[in-house]
Amino acid sequence: MTIVLIGAGNLGHHLGLRLAECGMAPVQVYSRQLEKAGKLADAIEARAVNDLSDIQADADLYILAVADDAIETVAQKLARRVERGALVVHTSGTTSSMAVGRHFSHYGVLYPLQTFSRQRPLDFGRIPICILGGSKENEVKLLQLAERLSEKVARIDDQQRSRLHLAAVFINNFTNHLFSISQELIREKGLSFDLLLPLAEETFDKIQDGQPAELQTGPAARGDRETIRRHLNALEDLPALREIYRRLSMSINPDLDLD
Amino acid sequence: MTIVLIGAGNLGHHLGLRLAECGMAPVQVYSRQLEKAGKLADAIEARAVNDLSDIQADADLYILAVADDAIETVAQKLARRVERGALVVHTSGTTSSMAVGRHFSHYGVLYPLQTFSRQRPLDFGRIPICILGGSKENEVKLLQLAERLSEKVARIDDQQRSRLHLAAVFINNFTNHLFSISQELIREKGLSFDLLLPLAEETFDKIQDGQPAELQTGPAARGDRETIRRHLNALEDLPALREIYRRLSMSINPDLDLD
Repeated sequence: MTIVLIGAGNLGHHLGLRLAECGMAPVQVYSRQLEKAGKLADAIEARAVNDLSDIQADADLYILAVADDAIETVAQKLARRVERGALVVHTSGTTSSMAVGRHFSHYGVLYPLQTFSRQRPLDFGRIPICILGGSKENEVKLLQLAERLSEKVARIDDQQRSRLHLAAVFINNFTNHLFSISQELIREKGLSFDLLLPLAEETFDKIQDGQPAELQTGPAARGDRETIRRHLNALEDLPALREIYRRLSMSINPDLDLD
Repeated sequence: MTIVLIGAGNLGHHLGLRLAECGMAPVQVYSRQLEKAGKLADAIEARAVNDLSDIQADADLYILAVADDAIETVAQKLARRVERGALVVHTSGTTSSMAVGRHFSHYGVLYPLQTFSRQRPLDFGRIPICILGGSKENEVKLLQLAERLSEKVARIDDQQRSRLHLAAVFINNFTNHLFSISQELIREKGLSFDLLLPLAEETFDKIQDGQPAELQTGPAARGDRETIRRHLNALEDLPALREIYRRLSMSINPDLDLD
């Protein structure tokens, strides 16, 4: 199977490396920045291109790992060029499969559910890959491909994927922001983040058995209004944080009525 | 050093076990529920009592591991009974050291910064212990004790400890709640929490180098209003969640003005 990878950002980079690792190295890597494409291409012995009209027309699979708002445009341009039998997929959590489906008869989605940073090595084989095929035949193709890349593959429709992406914002972006908030709160008092890391670790370890709601502890969960009042007072000069504290506490315990 | 442990809740339980493990088993364990005191006392060969007037009067150290709102009352009752030279400490993150300091000339705080569940084994030696002594002499005593219990000990005043406790609510209670929210969001679409666990794991692993703010990703961080708008629409029927999403996004990126 001949693969062309469009996009060499964080996701494209890791996906390209993983494809190569599994013996399916893309033949071409595209990025608007040739240097970026080149870096990945060199690592996996592919050809780097920075012009869509240099894209090989007869590959079997085109993987679009570009920014969400570029998917439709790239798909459109690509459609003028690649042969009719090609399968074209995007890798986005928030974009409808129709962003490629409107331009190709063989289309789908291959969405690795993880946060990618170029510098951090990742165990790609453990990342859940959510796939969707525009037809049964394409779904089977993507399933087989994904199962070579990861031990965890799920067939997920557009609606489910978009919900997963929303949940991922809560579990990743918002959690990370809570870590920032904590760090900033104690830094103001001259304390090191090290003091909080074992607590963060235990918080994470506890959810491994999959029941966070049942493990909820803290002042809101036990209806400890006195402690909550003291915390809200401590946040008086930080109104945005105070509001986040208040809203999250009421969400944990809807019986609390906090002003 | 003779130690009496007052309280056999989650924290009391783990602290009692750890003291014994380090060769400093309490001689008595107190709980209002004799059965609870008995369970821990049996494990560490201590005596269980459920009446404060049965507490031994001549111990060197009394550790109050009781609920925050019971500390002052217990300290008051204990003051009538124990000898003047005794050191009395509480273990609370939110309570002033004066809750014991008002009743004893030798007082302090010994606050293990962790979330405790009776069922879960813990590596107590890695839990940061925050100590405060009412005098230099008592601080040294507590420091020596704490250093036998854990590899990470910090001297922290009342203000700092109360800020740490507030930060702990963000990093533990609120993070756990975000995990619940994510689980609930995808459960509604028939999806398993397993799909999100690797993402939670990576989120946690990333902060190990201590710079969560610099690692912030997601639609809010990159000012992706289109994705945020779609997420807010998806949460239209869940107004409390929608508000949490909105507030956290604006906190991540103060340039966003979301309604």
